[in-house]
Amino acid sequence: MKKLATYYVFNTAKTPLTKVNKPIPSLKDGEILVNIRYTTLCGSDLHTYCGLRHEPCPTILGHEIVGTIAEITPAHSGLDAQGNRLQVGDLITWTVFSSDPNTLSYQPEIPQKNDNLYKYGHRQVTEKDNLHGGLATHIILRPHTCIRVLPHTISLGVAATINCAVATSAGALRLAGTISGKNVHVTGIGLLGLVTIAMCKELGATTIIASDINPARLAMAKQFGATHTVNLGETENNSLIHELHIDRFIDMSGSPDAMELGIETLDLHGRAVLVGAVFNQRKTGIDAEKVIRKMLTIQGLHNYNYTDFSTAVDFIVDHWQQYPFTTLIEREFPLAEVNAAIDYALTHKPIRAGVYMDHSTTSR
Amino acid sequence: MKKLATYYVFNTAKTPLTKVNKPIPSLKDGEILVNIRYTTLCGSDLHTYCGLRHEPCPTILGHEIVGTIAEITPAHSGLDAQGNRLQVGDLITWTVFSSDPNTLSYQPEIPQKNDNLYKYGHRQVTEKDNLHGGLATHIILRPHTCIRVLPHTISLGVAATINCAVATSAGALRLAGTISGKNVHVTGIGLLGLVTIAMCKELGATTIIASDINPARLAMAKQFGATHTVNLGETENNSLIHELHIDRFIDMSGSPDAMELGIETLDLHGRAVLVGAVFNQRKTGIDAEKVIRKMLTIQGLHNYNYTDFSTAVDFIVDHWQQYPFTTLIEREFPLAEVNAAIDYALTHKPIRAGVYMDHSTTSR
Repeated sequence: MKKLATYYVFNTAKTPLTKVNKPIPSLKDGEILVNIRYTTLCGSDLHTYCGLRHEPCPTILGHEIVGTIAEITPAHSGLDAQGNRLQVGDLITWTVFSSDPNTLSYQPEIPQKNDNLYKYGHRQVTEKDNLHGGLATHIILRPHTCIRVLPHTISLGVAATINCAVATSAGALRLAGTISGKNVHVTGIGLLGLVTIAMCKELGATTIIASDINPARLAMAKQFGATHTVNLGETENNSLIHELHIDRFIDMSGSPDAMELGIETLDLHGRAVLVGAVFNQRKTGIDAEKVIRKMLTIQGLHNYNYTDFSTAVDFIVDHWQQYPFTTLIEREFPLAEVNAAIDYALTHKPIRAGVYMDHSTTSR
Repeated sequence: MKKLATYYVFNTAKTPLTKVNKPIPSLKDGEILVNIRYTTLCGSDLHTYCGLRHEPCPTILGHEIVGTIAEITPAHSGLDAQGNRLQVGDLITWTVFSSDPNTLSYQPEIPQKNDNLYKYGHRQVTEKDNLHGGLATHIILRPHTCIRVLPHTISLGVAATINCAVATSAGALRLAGTISGKNVHVTGIGLLGLVTIAMCKELGATTIIASDINPARLAMAKQFGATHTVNLGETENNSLIHELHIDRFIDMSGSPDAMELGIETLDLHGRAVLVGAVFNQRKTGIDAEKVIRKMLTIQGLHNYNYTDFSTAVDFIVDHWQQYPFTTLIEREFPLAEVNAAIDYALTHKPIRAGVYMDHSTTSR
């Protein structure tokens, strides 16, 4: 008899997820079955839940996931991205997408923008294709998913964030170029902002200015390595941003006001990386003459590539205990209470709420 | 007795240049005296003349210059940028700036943005520092000016444009990245636009769309290699820009409307290079969400670096007869008629008006 998987389906905005039990389908060649151990609720999951984003429904939300390998099909190479032999029971993280390099549109620098991308946590549940989201007991990893083995000692909640927030932050810093010896301004202090600040600290930034409109978030930024904080809600406190020679600006806020300020105040040959503005909004006004005379670079980043994923895994494995990452998962809930987790996240706006899965009764 | 130099001084907007004869000063260590042979009137010279730009006055306008070496001081290395031995009588072009690499602010990638830059054609005339502009019989090249020897067979008018328009176009294409196999959109069909189009052609662009509001300029663009032209004054003709997958957008127009259209219509992983907007103007509105989801790069370029200058010299030496570059100097005037040259340029708006110097009576 086939084992059952449990998953929670999102059907329509602002409506509790509904529980489904289904037999785990037979794996296809190259697939890996994972027992999900932990999923964190990303901001985009909550946006979808609230109807601000649209996914093909019904869907299983959750893409910041870690789990242990339950089964590896023989057609899989059996190796992770570093050449480590994968074994049943290994704790793993994986790219949020499976991207087939044989696709005509494939570009190695941006595998996340390939045609026919298979993106976990963003797919429609169908009879034949259902175990692809994080709010579930199991997930099936498709071929061309980049996998990394993690140490079992790592915090599961922190590890869950690697394949979305942490990897995207790594991508932002790849685009930002040299950080060592530079003055960096990071705006929008959610998980991406905090990770970016900690990464800048480790990369040897001279000054790290964190800006936001929320004093509590600015206090967190200090704990993650910000040398200065600026409350953008208090205009009289903005002088630091105008006075310092800022070399790098990384926007995680998505606020046109913040982006305009950040780009405007970049110094000669400065670089801006825009990450946060993944929602419909007013145009951001740039002074083209300043962009030209100061020879600025403005780049957009959406998701991340394999290099960024690898950087993210290494960063968290090496530094997760050095910064208060575990405090960012402000509350955790068992999978059976996933609707309470969502309510908590929407009401209290923690950096992350966590959902854990108990596999003690699972034989497979 | 010291030889005399003649130069024409710009004092205030919309007022004819005044002629000055002065003894050529003794050269300082490392300097080179050049007999100017030809100067083309750049758009920025005309902007200054009309009061739209401000230079420290009195000044000698003209920075697109070629000339022959009259004297080399012993302290000069005696070599051009390629290691060729410089000799009196050599026809040379040089960077529009002298940039001292020993300055604290020096950055090798942007020598043109160094502190204490000495920029030909943009300096105040003083008793001790006067031969630094192109509308003159002589110019003194300072140490740290990058020089290249040119073949005597080259058109002087075309050669004069190397160190401004052509080198800046080379810089734009350096920032634009790969051109081979790409669809490129170039807007603003002045000299920079035409050179950029010809360079894109030589670099193997698949499609080169030229856009402007002037049909005559669009016809020129075809002669320089544009595969398609779009009259931006006729909105019903814009569909090509919206339909084609455009990989590179290079703005030489400085028009916020054109920049907004060009950035908006870039395809996935596209790159925009902004060059033309070196004057005060309204903000350019960018859709940050599109910049992010399409992972666009927007860069500003002001002037050029040594690599670009070298690329520009090689390009013109190799290709000046292959495209109708000589027709772009639509009329030429002797130095004595420089005010007529300016009037002609302002009235007829040619791509370039040229000013030539007759050194047949000069012994030095």
